[in-house]
Amino acid sequence: MLMSSWVETANDPQCPFPLNNLPFGVFSAGDAPRCATAIGDKVLDLAALQKAGLLPACGFDEPALNTFMAKGPQVWQAVRDRLTSLLSAEHEDGETRLQVTSALHEACDVRLHLPFQVSEYTDFYAGKQHAINVGTMFRGAENALPPNWLHIPIGYNGRASTVVVSGTEIRRPLGQTKAPDADMPSFGPCQRLDIELEMGAVIGLPSNMGQPVSVDEADAMIFGYVLLNDWSARDIQAWEYQPLGPFQAKAFATTISPWIVTKAALEPFRCPTPEREKPLLPHLRDTGPMLYDIELGVSMTAKGGAPTVISQTNYRYMYYSAAQQLAHHSSSGCAMRTGDLLGSGTVSGPDKHQYGSLLEMTWGGKEPLTLDDGQTRRFIEDGDTLALHGHAQGQGYRIGFGSCKGTILPAFDS
Amino acid sequence: MLMSSWVETANDPQCPFPLNNLPFGVFSAGDAPRCATAIGDKVLDLAALQKAGLLPACGFDEPALNTFMAKGPQVWQAVRDRLTSLLSAEHEDGETRLQVTSALHEACDVRLHLPFQVSEYTDFYAGKQHAINVGTMFRGAENALPPNWLHIPIGYNGRASTVVVSGTEIRRPLGQTKAPDADMPSFGPCQRLDIELEMGAVIGLPSNMGQPVSVDEADAMIFGYVLLNDWSARDIQAWEYQPLGPFQAKAFATTISPWIVTKAALEPFRCPTPEREKPLLPHLRDTGPMLYDIELGVSMTAKGGAPTVISQTNYRYMYYSAAQQLAHHSSSGCAMRTGDLLGSGTVSGPDKHQYGSLLEMTWGGKEPLTLDDGQTRRFIEDGDTLALHGHAQGQGYRIGFGSCKGTILPAFDS
Repeated sequence: MLMSSWVETANDPQCPFPLNNLPFGVFSAGDAPRCATAIGDKVLDLAALQKAGLLPACGFDEPALNTFMAKGPQVWQAVRDRLTSLLSAEHEDGETRLQVTSALHEACDVRLHLPFQVSEYTDFYAGKQHAINVGTMFRGAENALPPNWLHIPIGYNGRASTVVVSGTEIRRPLGQTKAPDADMPSFGPCQRLDIELEMGAVIGLPSNMGQPVSVDEADAMIFGYVLLNDWSARDIQAWEYQPLGPFQAKAFATTISPWIVTKAALEPFRCPTPEREKPLLPHLRDTGPMLYDIELGVSMTAKGGAPTVISQTNYRYMYYSAAQQLAHHSSSGCAMRTGDLLGSGTVSGPDKHQYGSLLEMTWGGKEPLTLDDGQTRRFIEDGDTLALHGHAQGQGYRIGFGSCKGTILPAFDS
Repeated sequence: MLMSSWVETANDPQCPFPLNNLPFGVFSAGDAPRCATAIGDKVLDLAALQKAGLLPACGFDEPALNTFMAKGPQVWQAVRDRLTSLLSAEHEDGETRLQVTSALHEACDVRLHLPFQVSEYTDFYAGKQHAINVGTMFRGAENALPPNWLHIPIGYNGRASTVVVSGTEIRRPLGQTKAPDADMPSFGPCQRLDIELEMGAVIGLPSNMGQPVSVDEADAMIFGYVLLNDWSARDIQAWEYQPLGPFQAKAFATTISPWIVTKAALEPFRCPTPEREKPLLPHLRDTGPMLYDIELGVSMTAKGGAPTVISQTNYRYMYYSAAQQLAHHSSSGCAMRTGDLLGSGTVSGPDKHQYGSLLEMTWGGKEPLTLDDGQTRRFIEDGDTLALHGHAQGQGYRIGFGSCKGTILPAFDS
């Protein structure tokens, strides 16, 4: 049910940032970046509230949420409760509200930054339809799903240095590729540039080296979720990925949405993982509903054109939850840190219009997409803008993530 | 030729830390960790020299070398020149020498820490003999070397959070494995625990997102080198590594030596990469001798026993240099950062006694090693200590790296 706020725009049922949401991000308004929440069409400066003594000292004056994220679930909840109280329609209209009002900025006037310093970035492969689609294209239908896939959430370490916030322009990568019939590889701009529609789990609490964590402990370590686009260079990937996995094909950019939506805001939308085809071993077994019902989509905009929605799917289609991925990630004793980012893997639903990558939508480029303006696309062209969107739909309100988009710049000369 | 120092122990031809070396590390003596160099059997407190105005302000009072490393080649050389002058036998015996003397600690009295904050860790696979050995065991002799191997230095992103300094005890990892004839995988302690003998290149200067760097630019970005043991769980690796590469099998620990040996100290030992079997594409081509002639070895010590040298090899056997690896790493536009660590890949020479992993030495466990005390080993047992050693041999002096060792603790209950 919608929680009512005295910030009136937050009470619109279509608003992504009602009082129920209170996501965390980092903003600036021509000055130093600092922490914020979003409410309606406003951005609330948490550094100002901290300075005024209205919030506990959690490093909100820093240009990243890591200090706050490291403080753990009790502090996260206390700050959420305090913000809920301060912004509630029931909050009395007095001096405190004046202080809060003076810390509000119009969202359209501020710049949003990467919300946290990414310690390390790991990307998983936990969408079954995606794994089957890609496996079929790369290895044939008989070998589509690797033998380990139903037993562990397969993942690989990605590159944290190129995780950027929505709106950052993305340079088309260069790389080495080899045509099947060529004698030698060649080096040049990626010809099969793609997206991957994912959710990202942001780790708040760290774990100790040598010490695996349980699925429940893992769930408690997660601070919140973002939308995540794992930009992918399919032709570079095809040549490089055997035997050690994706490397430069994924290293050039990963875009995330500017707002981290907290677990608390998503709590009403928890849902179970799909039925298990083979029983999971005890250390990875579900202990409750740990996925979320989040509607996800992708739109594509050719330069100068209007957006075309090219995919609509849901996070609930994943086979493994972020908590299970995190439990697996720590199973060897790998230390997890505040600021680690875990990509869910591409979210593809069972139907073609629910696929989360162009590779799947165009079946390896064989079946081009037609945009609303009549242009066709096999993969991404220079000047195209790709945007992910997502929200959880409640009764009379929605929990939004903000935009997760990027425009492709032409490659440098190789 | 040995450069003579007034620190007399530095003038022994067997000493790993003569005036020619001057490696950088981080130490403490019951107080706060700070930066240091090694000279003879002493450790020189660079924070004290900085405070006394004998060195420029480079963050030497910090518990990591990152600030200094970010300053670039001119500052690196200026500090090296200054330290060389201060410690030279020709330095006049006056007040300055008294100040330097008061900043010296006995190496046996101090604790050495991780020398830099590891931003991200990447591990390569650039030793040809190793790739052939492992490929033969995993995929058969016909498919030993992947098709891309002679064209790009294959690598994967590793885990920075578990890079530890020599001497740190290593917990035997847990993980999921599956016997070839089993219906289901199982979860428990690693049964095939291994080392990988590697060199690590430490990145000083960063690069920009979207902008590839040339091989020469890459070489200039490298601050120095360490010994690196890429601890590996072979049974976990065999089950998990397809199709996205090694993950938990490598994530539990990576040990490095405490001293970063600078490029300047290694300059006399540069040597070329081996002859190319296929020409490299221009962006990866050698521009000069970019490998180093560094003698490397491994010793194994069962609990309570004496060390047995089980491998002796040389860094010059690698097919790709660190500069080529770094050029490849940035080729897609991946931003590199101060503190990035690049593992060379296992250094295996052509002969069996030159192999850099137990997997190769025992050929997958089929041919056990016999230690000097008569014990045999297929893989590492609890209580075993594995140590890497390495030095470049000059005329009348050597450039040493210090120890790179770890002892294995029993696994936690699974």
